Amino acid sequence: MPATHDKDHVYKMLDLVGSSEKSIEAAIENAIGRASKTIREMKWFEVVQTRGHIEDGKVRHYQVTLRVGFTLE
Amino acid sequence: MPATHDKDHVYKMLDLVGSSEKSIEAAIENAIGRASKTIREMKWFEVVQTRGHIEDGKVRHYQVTLRVGFTLE
Amino acid sequence: MPATHDKDHVYKMLDLVGSSEKSIEAAIENAIGRASKTIREMKWFEVVQTRGHIEDGKVRHYQVTLRVGFTLE
Amino acid sequence: MPATHDKDHVYKMLDLVGSSEKSIEAAIENAIGRASKTIREMKWFEVVQTRGHIEDGKVRHYQVTLRVGFTLE
Amino acid sequence: MPATHDKDHVYKMLDLVGSSEKSIEAAIENAIGRASKTIREMKWFEVVQTRGHIEDGKVRHYQVTLRVGFTLE
Amino acid sequence: MPATHDKDHVYKMLDLVGSSEKSIEAAIENAIGRASKTIREMKWFEVVQTRGHIEDGKVRHYQVTLRVGFTLE
Amino acid sequence: MPATHDKDHVYKMLDLVGSSEKSIEAAIENAIGRASKTIREMKWFEVVQTRGHIEDGKVRHYQVTLRVGFTLE
Amino acid sequence: MPATHDKDHVYKMLDLVGSSEKSIEAAIENAIGRASKTIREMKWFEVVQTRGHIEDGKVRHYQVTLRVGFTLE
Amino acid sequence: MPATHDKDHVYKMLDLVGSSEKSIEAAIENAIGRASKTIREMKWFEVVQTRGHIEDGKVRHYQVTLRVGFTLE
Amino acid sequence: MPATHDKDHVYKMLDLVGSSEKSIEAAIENAIGRASKTIREMKWFEVVQTRGHIEDGKVRHYQVTLRVGFTLE
Amino acid sequence: MPATHDKDHVYKMLDLVGSSEKSIEAAIENAIGRASKTIREMKWFEVVQTRGHIEDGKVRHYQVTLRVGFTLE
Amino acid sequence: MPATHDKDHVYKMLDLVGSSEKSIEAAIENAIGRASKTIREMKWFEVVQTRGHIEDGKVRHYQVTLRVGFTLE
Repeated sequence: MPATHDKDHVYKMLDLVGSSEKSIEAAIENAIGRASKTIREMKWFEVVQTRGHIEDGKVRHYQVTLRVGFTLE
Repeated sequence: MPATHDKDHVYKMLDLVGSSEKSIEAAIENAIGRASKTIREMKWFEVVQTRGHIEDGKVRHYQVTLRVGFTLE
Repeated sequence: MPATHDKDHVYKMLDLVGSSEKSIEAAIENAIGRASKTIREMKWFEVVQTRGHIEDGKVRHYQVTLRVGFTLE
Repeated sequence: MPATHDKDHVYKMLDLVGSSEKSIEAAIENAIGRASKTIREMKWFEVVQTRGHIEDGKVRHYQVTLRVGFTLE
Repeated sequence: MPATHDKDHVYKMLDLVGSSEKSIEAAIENAIGRASKTIREMKWFEVVQTRGHIEDGKVRHYQVTLRVGFTLE
Repeated sequence: MPATHDKDHVYKMLDLVGSSEKSIEAAIENAIGRASKTIREMKWFEVVQTRGHIEDGKVRHYQVTLRVGFTLE
Repeated sequence: MPATHDKDHVYKMLDLVGSSEKSIEAAIENAIGRASKTIREMKWFEVVQTRGHIEDGKVRHYQVTLRVGFTLE
Repeated sequence: MPATHDKDHVYKMLDLVGSSEKSIEAAIENAIGRASKTIREMKWFEVVQTRGHIEDGKVRHYQVTLRVGFTLE
Repeated sequence: MPATHDKDHVYKMLDLVGSSEKSIEAAIENAIGRASKTIREMKWFEVVQTRGHIEDGKVRHYQVTLRVGFTLE
Repeated sequence: MPATHDKDHVYKMLDLVGSSEKSIEAAIENAIGRASKTIREMKWFEVVQTRGHIEDGKVRHYQVTLRVGFTLE
Repeated sequence: MPATHDKDHVYKMLDLVGSSEKSIEAAIENAIGRASKTIREMKWFEVVQTRGHIEDGKVRHYQVTLRVGFTLE
Repeated sequence: MPATHDKDHVYKMLDLVGSSEKSIEAAIENAIGRASKTIREMKWFEVVQTRGHIEDGKVRHYQVTLRVGFTLE
């Protein structure tokens, strides 16, 4: 939810999946960093699901599904 | 869900957040009115979440998250 | 949930969908008013889902799904 | 959800379980076909749960729970 | 839930609320016993919600919401 | 969710039920107005459930359950 | 949900976990009895989760999470 | 969820509703086929809801809501 | 789900994912057929999730997650 | 959840269905007692679902689905 | 869930939101550290929701909602 | 969900709880590392729940419940 002074805006929400070999936070950062190339004015996100792939008994990479809110300009 | 005679269409769904200082219905109307500037053929919506901000022990404004369905032309 | 003195009753629950062009509350009132013609002793309701139809970028009418509890006489 | 021109109606919803040895669709059709003998004006359904029974390592039959909406005449 | 010979039936489901001052099981039995006066061929139930009322820091009675399935004859 | 500049705070959440004979919004306002007498710094709310009581086939009053967030000072 | 004549009150909800070696009902009673020492005017509860601990292949005790509603005086 | 070697991509998700008079699978195929005209690189889907319309006691058509994931190129 | 004569058994549940290029039902049959090689006495299943992979704008195969119950002999 | 000093263990979870003609607690005890013949080191359980069968308007037996956690030795 | 030897206690649960610019774990630690100034005997927590704010295409801070259990002394 | 070329396999799913004093990721790694001693061919996981224990106002360790999928060879 955006800040109080944003009350006149309408927001649109978008679901993204980001990945990282390192951590859950890095997967989130990767998704948002990549999406910011085409979507300006992203304001907040919510983690919808945390998953990952396993290889040889180890986590190969994390995959995090995010719901992102941005201003409909 | 759209009407029976629309059976040949494919619909796309979109999540929006609208706000209003007045009522839940006005927040819904604001989101749909704003989105209608760029999305034609919106057909139905579903309320996903109703929230709001509080200032000085009063509701400052309502924020309603909608899932909106529209025809994929 | 009904009042404390109703503890000996068994209740039955029923799902209804009501509509209104005006408001969510009016859609609830319409569903309950219509059902009261055949079901006596309705005691409480719970909102299960709030939806609506859109025409020309405006809410055409609200549709509210209710779960209604009534005494099994 | 029924079509736009049905806005003045109140709908009632009913949960049914239908079965078929053949397919999920046939279980749905069986439930609706059987219920149509006593309930007129069924308008839409939603699949609530899909289950089945197993015999000798094979699906013996599918059992589908439906929520059906019909006009409260 | 196991069983196979019932595959040709269509079942209808009904939500009931039963009460008891004594126990959750007694509230279930009360709801089913009362409903059996008008509904024959009830076959199974599922507990949907367990609630109760409190008086003077003690449970006054339990209220259990059941979903009951019965044969559509 | 509070505004961006509040990132150093810790928030506590509280569930309230408010009532009104008039509307869902009034039930929300009543709960927040009453709670503001003892809890300062309430910032946002989320509607958890909307219910009501019925008398003589009419809505007697609405009851709305809110989750309210406030700053832990 | 409280009785109809309580419509002017605002309720607060509280989550408790109670335990008992004997039964689910006793775990509920223990939680409510203990909480009643500091919270007056508890009106209703709802079971949120039923769990327990196992020792030597037997249930050692039940643990029930309750949501309790009480009048905000 | 896409295959292991796709770990560097960011995916976007989209909700679609497809219809078919024949089967659930055909409704899924119709939605994906139609969306593939404008969205390249769709990789996986998940069924969110299965519904349908009824006419004269028969299923008129199935309507399936899908969540589709595709590569953000 | 109906049935009575199985009341003395204890059941164990297992989650499986089956695939098919053809249909949802075939994916269910494949999972159960494969599991029946090592697990005897499977009795019933429930569909937990229906997903699939897409290639060139077409469904490549369906993947269905099942919860299967079998007798603990 | 197990006790604090168990932090080095990895736990496995298992879903069981137990039955009893007498009570919900007895159905839980039956499932755990039966499973303890082959699984040592069960530590805790959670009730997932409570169901039952009905005969002649009475509860014939309760069926409780449990999620059980045990140490992976 | 607390350890086995805690069976005689009654626990109260509390929802908190903590923030951190660094990581999800730091947001959890901040919420618990801040709450421990007024609440003694916190025993366990559960993550209810993970969210965050975005500025200039980067995560500005994480916000984690926790449910915390503590002994009712 | 596994990669496209795995379409002929049947997968089994397993729920595990892993712990770590350090981080959520380390708790996930511990569960998967420990399980890989007896289960070969684990392919993917999904986080079901994140919990933890608190001592002296600090997180003592994280406990993460995972759903793990592996090939049924």
